[in-house]
Amino acid sequence: MTDLLNSDLDLSEFETDLAGLALSPDAQDLLFRDAHTAYAFTDEPVTDDQVKAVYDLVKWAPTAMNSQPLRVVLVRTPEARRRLVQHMGGNNQARVAGAPLVAILAADVDFHDELHKTFSVVPVAREMIVGEDAARERSARFSAALQAAYFLVGVRAAGLGAGPMTGFDAAGVDAEFFPHGDHKTLMVVNIGRTAGDGQRPRLPRLDFDEVVETA
Amino acid sequence: MTDLLNSDLDLSEFETDLAGLALSPDAQDLLFRDAHTAYAFTDEPVTDDQVKAVYDLVKWAPTAMNSQPLRVVLVRTPEARRRLVQHMGGNNQARVAGAPLVAILAADVDFHDELHKTFSVVPVAREMIVGEDAARERSARFSAALQAAYFLVGVRAAGLGAGPMTGFDAAGVDAEFFPHGDHKTLMVVNIGRTAGDGQRPRLPRLDFDEVVETA
Repeated sequence: MTDLLNSDLDLSEFETDLAGLALSPDAQDLLFRDAHTAYAFTDEPVTDDQVKAVYDLVKWAPTAMNSQPLRVVLVRTPEARRRLVQHMGGNNQARVAGAPLVAILAADVDFHDELHKTFSVVPVAREMIVGEDAARERSARFSAALQAAYFLVGVRAAGLGAGPMTGFDAAGVDAEFFPHGDHKTLMVVNIGRTAGDGQRPRLPRLDFDEVVETA
Repeated sequence: MTDLLNSDLDLSEFETDLAGLALSPDAQDLLFRDAHTAYAFTDEPVTDDQVKAVYDLVKWAPTAMNSQPLRVVLVRTPEARRRLVQHMGGNNQARVAGAPLVAILAADVDFHDELHKTFSVVPVAREMIVGEDAARERSARFSAALQAAYFLVGVRAAGLGAGPMTGFDAAGVDAEFFPHGDHKTLMVVNIGRTAGDGQRPRLPRLDFDEVVETA
């Protein structure tokens, strides 16, 4: 395959790596192989500019109907952090209390009200789903989950560590931060510069043959 | 920030790009900015080795409880493709019929039967969720959606185009390809080398200020 991005690489290293990928081995390491879930961080703050750089990169990745239902709350004040910590489960309370930045990732089930901007190519899209509350929530949860994954990749693209968590009282977080009921919290993510002892040993992954079949 | 990965880049280009990202601008383009959903492909086939390279890269990204519920069916035979096409909606029938490779991405709601391998650090994990069918399906759908997003990023990392679709009869695809009822189809993806006219103009994305708030 054409491999424009790796023209200055040591090919022997590349060929013993993941043959066939156009993404450079350094980038593969940064985003996937060297990046582990982060459990401890340095004191270095995470700025809004850094989060904006992450968002402005990953916003281009695809969602169903270009719906982009992900909504993010950056927990900055001590008061907001206390309000979040109380809904976290077990060990996640201390993790949220101690991270440089904590982000709440939620799905906006009223994403159809943005479709006139995001999906104007199909003007009837909003009318087709406005009354379908259950289907719309399913779609919002699905596409926002895709975007949550893109966001985690983006945090790693910024050279930062991400500690994604699903162990919390989602209804409690929703009531606390989204009292209008139109947002469903999917994930809470600690973000920061990973500390030297901030990673755990890698857990096993399923093999290709356990996951992929051919029909 | 430390920027080890970009030490040989023209800094003026980097600084006017997305300041603060450690990922090289070329990789940013490959994965997010230049990559659009693909609607037409060249005749070049997509090999199992290419799909394995994609999987072996993105398998490292995080899922809840390391559960890795994503399961993939590569639709290779004409007969399997006919069986899939009949469940696709509208324009997606011709898209699936014509793509070099089509992959069905599904969530394994019985992922708990793999936890002895994937999450052996918490030996009671399987017992905690084995009877919780609804919660387990929600978790499977969520983590498999994360993995579907990682997979799309991985397809782009291979220099290929991805055409993800959610417009199909999911119950029909499930019955056709997963008759045991333990897999829920989330997405069908066309994969190949994007043709010269295979991309559409970019649809608008929501701005940072429309998506991110601070508390």
